[in-house]
Amino acid sequence: MADTLRLAGALLDDGRRVDVRIADGRIASIEPAGGEPAGETVIDLGGRLLCPAFVDGHIHLDKTLLGLEWQPHLPGDSVAERIAAEKRLRAGLAMPVAARAARLIEQVVAFGTTRLRCHVDVDPAIGLAGLHALVELRERYRALVDIQLVAFPQSGILAAPGTAELLDAAVADGADLVGGLDPAGIDGDVEGHLDTVFAIAGRRGAGIDIHLHDFGLLGSFELRQIAARTIAVGLQGRVAVSHAFALGMIDDEEFALTADALAAAGVAIMTNGPGAVAMPPVKRLMAHGVTVFAGSDNIRDAWSPYGNGDMLERAMLVGYRAGFLADEDLRLAFAMATTIAATVTGRPGHLLEPGAPADLVALDAPHVPAAVVGRPAGRLVIRQGRPVARDGRLL
Amino acid sequence: MADTLRLAGALLDDGRRVDVRIADGRIASIEPAGGEPAGETVIDLGGRLLCPAFVDGHIHLDKTLLGLEWQPHLPGDSVAERIAAEKRLRAGLAMPVAARAARLIEQVVAFGTTRLRCHVDVDPAIGLAGLHALVELRERYRALVDIQLVAFPQSGILAAPGTAELLDAAVADGADLVGGLDPAGIDGDVEGHLDTVFAIAGRRGAGIDIHLHDFGLLGSFELRQIAARTIAVGLQGRVAVSHAFALGMIDDEEFALTADALAAAGVAIMTNGPGAVAMPPVKRLMAHGVTVFAGSDNIRDAWSPYGNGDMLERAMLVGYRAGFLADEDLRLAFAMATTIAATVTGRPGHLLEPGAPADLVALDAPHVPAAVVGRPAGRLVIRQGRPVARDGRLL
Repeated sequence: MADTLRLAGALLDDGRRVDVRIADGRIASIEPAGGEPAGETVIDLGGRLLCPAFVDGHIHLDKTLLGLEWQPHLPGDSVAERIAAEKRLRAGLAMPVAARAARLIEQVVAFGTTRLRCHVDVDPAIGLAGLHALVELRERYRALVDIQLVAFPQSGILAAPGTAELLDAAVADGADLVGGLDPAGIDGDVEGHLDTVFAIAGRRGAGIDIHLHDFGLLGSFELRQIAARTIAVGLQGRVAVSHAFALGMIDDEEFALTADALAAAGVAIMTNGPGAVAMPPVKRLMAHGVTVFAGSDNIRDAWSPYGNGDMLERAMLVGYRAGFLADEDLRLAFAMATTIAATVTGRPGHLLEPGAPADLVALDAPHVPAAVVGRPAGRLVIRQGRPVARDGRLL
Repeated sequence: MADTLRLAGALLDDGRRVDVRIADGRIASIEPAGGEPAGETVIDLGGRLLCPAFVDGHIHLDKTLLGLEWQPHLPGDSVAERIAAEKRLRAGLAMPVAARAARLIEQVVAFGTTRLRCHVDVDPAIGLAGLHALVELRERYRALVDIQLVAFPQSGILAAPGTAELLDAAVADGADLVGGLDPAGIDGDVEGHLDTVFAIAGRRGAGIDIHLHDFGLLGSFELRQIAARTIAVGLQGRVAVSHAFALGMIDDEEFALTADALAAAGVAIMTNGPGAVAMPPVKRLMAHGVTVFAGSDNIRDAWSPYGNGDMLERAMLVGYRAGFLADEDLRLAFAMATTIAATVTGRPGHLLEPGAPADLVALDAPHVPAAVVGRPAGRLVIRQGRPVARDGRLL
């Protein structure tokens, strides 16, 4: 019985008061509250809401400046200028990537995230150093969090000769997915860029997650090119596009054409509820059958001073930007940061039900919609059936 | 000396470490840290950042559902439908307006707000009941917060006969400003609506703050009509328009025409950094000489489940939506929620300098930009030289 745990007096989102029994890192049973413990460790939740733990579908652990002195944002009007500004800044940082990333991992776990997809810069200057550091951290923190790694060509692929070979080597060295970046806007060669990304993924059996900032009709053209290649290579269900601002900028006909293509190819869309740029229309995409999930994106780095890695706050921001007001919509924002993001990142069944992995968060709210808008700070984080963080601190 | 206070070891936004001496509710001096107390009460801030207290330029104390059971959002596609949905909801509430509003006042003071502009519904159904409740609360909470009241015709003016007389009576009974609401979209009579509002304000010597949701060219036309009437009646500097989404929807020529008209008339614009609708472009408006300030707008009410009244979080949302990244822009977002909002609401000189009212907040951050993005929870709130809240609780 040493390995079993009873979360007593848990409130579920549907209003039931239950005891959740956990064994071998999984939810063993969900029973009416007040059952008799049979030797297992009991944690009394006292009516706190119990939810699936958070999943961050898009984070840049290697970019964060957390732990360093405040770094004023360096201006840059284009994506290319900001890439250059980041290179200048990061070249002079006093703290290595492993230390900065470790700090952010611990912070997001304390907020309640137990699974994340991390994009790691791979380019001729950085080489695979960032990737190797993250592969090591993935092992070191395995008891706290599942980390998926995307080899991310932040400087472009064709624009930075040698990057294609590095992306290939990154997957060989432990990256789970191949990334991409604005095939038109950065590389100026949609076909060349996507051919490279899909060739590596096909050869290595890896998934794909492409950053796409390109606007309007250019972006929607690229989305359909990605969808077509996904089907051609047989990667349906394993390709995502992050940001895809274009989906919020095009007319109804172009949107329907593009959304249908994404749905047919099983290409998912990641949004962080961006601040000052168009947001993909979540519910319209879902109505076309497209999966939409949430992630933090930048957290106190050269790209943005905002963000803290709290996926409950991210769900609020996504809902706020999407105009989600009704309870069912607030629940959708929450699912984008939990169950849906888990499914996209390769863990279906991230639900509060028997047999599911016991990655859970307890917090003070009457139900999920209130949790999303209120973002209560006091949280108990359960990872694989063991308490790992409480009230913002790792145990 | 009983009435004097020394805030020792305060960090200012410019990096200085100082002792701030307070006497008679005002800042008496700002000296290098480490000075010798001369009998006054000392609070050691230990290097925490000291800032002007927050000012909420737009709140609806009478609408909040705080303190009640969660109320699921009732859908409504148009402003008119949502007005009707709110009426149905509020007619059945178990808690009177005074109790709900009091709870929200205490919450915002605990966050660090010591001055606010509150719009209070005035219509033939509610009459002046809400206004009278708020006038009484304004007195009851005077030691904690300055409250400006706007008589707000939530059901329209011409569309709800009797409202014009009620608005006039509201100012006679204690409202500081006359409100308005979508002269075209709700009343269908731009000239009739504005004639009424400006006539009451002119007769009573009151200011004006008009809710304007109308989109695009319709909204910008109305903004210029408001500017023209402001000059005609001689109310320059005393008129504001809240929301003004239209300013984020029009082409450069129409924008310049409208912004110049607003600037010439001294009409200020309030934004809360709206989630799913266009935001007035803050810096472009300022470049034309228009004052832009911040407010919460809806807080857990029939219009929105979001919001908590924390103006530091609001500054973050405004900055996030405006694309503010540089330190100077984060400071601008903060000023919109402090000094600029104070000036618009009739208190110029809300600064951290000798002679200013000692309404202050101390919090754990190295400077204002970091405070805006980090929104630290632990805060000490000083009102008229006396500590009134600490770490989210009233003292």
